[in-house]
Amino acid sequence: MKVSDLGEHGTIDLLARTINSARDVAAPSWQKLVLGIGDDCAAWQGDGPIQLATVDALRQDVHFTLETTSWNDLGWKALAVNLSDIAAMGGLPAYALVSLAIPEQTDIEDILAFYRGMLELAGHFGVAIVGGDIDRTPYIDATVTVFGNAGGSLLTRSAAKIGDKVAVTGFLGGAAAGLEMLSKNLKLDAESSDALKKAFSRPAPRIEEGQIMVIEGVRAAIDVSDGLVADLGHICRASGVSAIIRTDRVPVQATVKTHFGSRALEMALTGGEDYELLFTADGETIERIKDHASCQVTVIGEIIEDAGAGVRVVDSNGQIVDLPQTGWDHFQEK
Amino acid sequence: MKVSDLGEHGTIDLLARTINSARDVAAPSWQKLVLGIGDDCAAWQGDGPIQLATVDALRQDVHFTLETTSWNDLGWKALAVNLSDIAAMGGLPAYALVSLAIPEQTDIEDILAFYRGMLELAGHFGVAIVGGDIDRTPYIDATVTVFGNAGGSLLTRSAAKIGDKVAVTGFLGGAAAGLEMLSKNLKLDAESSDALKKAFSRPAPRIEEGQIMVIEGVRAAIDVSDGLVADLGHICRASGVSAIIRTDRVPVQATVKTHFGSRALEMALTGGEDYELLFTADGETIERIKDHASCQVTVIGEIIEDAGAGVRVVDSNGQIVDLPQTGWDHFQEK
Repeated sequence: MKVSDLGEHGTIDLLARTINSARDVAAPSWQKLVLGIGDDCAAWQGDGPIQLATVDALRQDVHFTLETTSWNDLGWKALAVNLSDIAAMGGLPAYALVSLAIPEQTDIEDILAFYRGMLELAGHFGVAIVGGDIDRTPYIDATVTVFGNAGGSLLTRSAAKIGDKVAVTGFLGGAAAGLEMLSKNLKLDAESSDALKKAFSRPAPRIEEGQIMVIEGVRAAIDVSDGLVADLGHICRASGVSAIIRTDRVPVQATVKTHFGSRALEMALTGGEDYELLFTADGETIERIKDHASCQVTVIGEIIEDAGAGVRVVDSNGQIVDLPQTGWDHFQEK
Repeated sequence: MKVSDLGEHGTIDLLARTINSARDVAAPSWQKLVLGIGDDCAAWQGDGPIQLATVDALRQDVHFTLETTSWNDLGWKALAVNLSDIAAMGGLPAYALVSLAIPEQTDIEDILAFYRGMLELAGHFGVAIVGGDIDRTPYIDATVTVFGNAGGSLLTRSAAKIGDKVAVTGFLGGAAAGLEMLSKNLKLDAESSDALKKAFSRPAPRIEEGQIMVIEGVRAAIDVSDGLVADLGHICRASGVSAIIRTDRVPVQATVKTHFGSRALEMALTGGEDYELLFTADGETIERIKDHASCQVTVIGEIIEDAGAGVRVVDSNGQIVDLPQTGWDHFQEK
C-alpha cells in the first residue's frame, strides 16, 4: 500500500499508533508527556508550566513557489505557521530553530531577506531564533520548530462538547484568494491587492486571542490551516462529535466577496491558510471573548452528536451544501 | 554574492550576526538564552535545568541515497545525528519531533520501517517521539528536532584552553569507509562488512560519555560529524585557539585499516559522520574519563596558542601532513 492510498491523516493515524505502541511507560519523558502526536503541538510537563513544541515545513512547489512568495514573506510565513500552532493551544512562543535547504546559487541577499522576514514576526512576540542548520539542495525547504509554553490550561482538538457553539476569529478566504490573485496575476485595485497579498503572504498568528480563550475558559481550538471545514473535521474526529455550520454566518473577507463573487464562500470554507483560530465553547464564553478580542469573533455553527457525519455545511434554509473538496490533504490529489 | 561563495560556515556566521543584531534584550526568551547559533545545540535556562534543542536534516541525494541507506537505517540515523548533538553538550535527550517529506508513491511499509528504526534508537535513551508533520514531495527529507536538558554544566565549542589535551572517543573512519563500501558495492568479509555498515548506517550517540565528561569537569566538546579535522577546527575558531594533532595517535577503526590501507588515515581525519565525541581537557581529567567510559578514549593532540593556523596535522616525525580537504562544507564543492 502507498501513502497516497492512505492519505495524510490515515498515514498519521497509522504512525501515531506505531509510535504510541512503543511508548516506554518507565521513561520520564513519556511519563511527563501531556499530548503526543495528533494535536497542533506536542505538550509535556516542564518544571514550571507545560512545554509546547511544534514543527512545520514550507516546501518549494508544494507549499509555495518563488513566483508567488518573496524570500522575505517566506521567512515570515515559515515562522507564522508554527506560531499559529502555538496560538491554537493557547500558548506563548519562545524559541525557534530553522532548518533551511537552499540551492547553492541562492543569493546571500535572498537568505538575508528570508531571515529579516522571520525576525520581523519573531520580534512581535519576543521569539528568539536560536539555532538551525543549512544545506545545499536543488530545492528550497524551510522547516521551523517552535518551542513555547502553555499560558494556563491547554486548548486541544479533543475537548469539543455537544451543544458548544463553533466560532472563528477574523475573516476567511483571504489566503486562498491571495494565492489565486498572485498565481494568476490578477490585477485588482491597490487596496484589495494589498489585503489579499497580506492574507496569503504574511498571516498574523492569533497568539493574543489564544491567550484570551484560555483565560475565558475555552477548551477546544485549532488553527485554520487546512481549511475551515477540514479543520473543524479534525476537532470533530478528535472529540468524537459532529458539527454543523451555516454558510450565511461564515465571515468571508470583504475583499474576497467583492472580487471572487460566487467562489468567495468556497474559498472561506475550504481554502485554508488563513491561520485564524477556530474554537468551540458555550455562548456566554464566546460573548466574553468577543468583548476582549481585538478582532471580530463570529459564531458559525454548533457541535452536535456524532452521527458519523463529521461536518455538515448548510445554507440559510438548512439545505446541505455540497463542497467539491473539504480542504488540504497532503497525499491525495484534489 | 551567492551562498556558494561564502560557504556554509561563512553563511552561518553572517546569519548569526543578522539574527543577533535583532536580539531584543527586553524579551524573556532572549534574557534566558544561554547559547544561540553556533554550537551543537541551542540552550536556554528553564525553570529547572538548562534546556537544549537541536535540529538536523537528512536530505536525499545530499546526505543519503536509498541505494546505500535503508528506510530503517534512515530512521535510526535521522534521530542519531541529533542525539549526538545533545551528547556533544553533555545533555540528556527527552523529546523528538519529526518533519518528513516523502514521495506519494512511497510504500507504507517503508515509512513504518523508518519509524521502527527511529523508535529502536529512541528506546535506548527514553526519548519520546511526540509530533511532527508529513508532506508529499518528489524527494525524501527527514528533519528531526530533539529537545533535552543539560546534565549539569554544558560542554561547548568555545571552552578549549591552551595546554588542553585533545581527545576522542571510540574509533574513526568507519562511517566514510562504510559509505564507500556501500556506494561502490565492495565485497568484504561478513564481519568487516557488518562493522562498516553499522558505522555508517547506525551510529551510536555518545550520550553516556557526554555525561561522564560533564561529571569529570570537561568543558569543551563537539561531535565528529563534519570530520575530525573540520570539527576540531570548529572548536579552535569558537575558542580562539589552534590545535595540533598527531596522525600516529588517531584511533583509526581496525576494519578501515585492514581494507583501505593508505586511505584509512584520511578517512579517519576527514571522513566525518563517525559521531564520536571530540573534547579537550587537562591530562588528569582525561585519565579519569578513560577510567569511567565504556569505550576507548584516545589523546590525539593538544590545544596551542592561536597562530591563525587552526588545526595542524603532523606525523610522528612532526612533519605537517597536507590533507586534500578537511571535511564537509555544505556549500563548497570538494
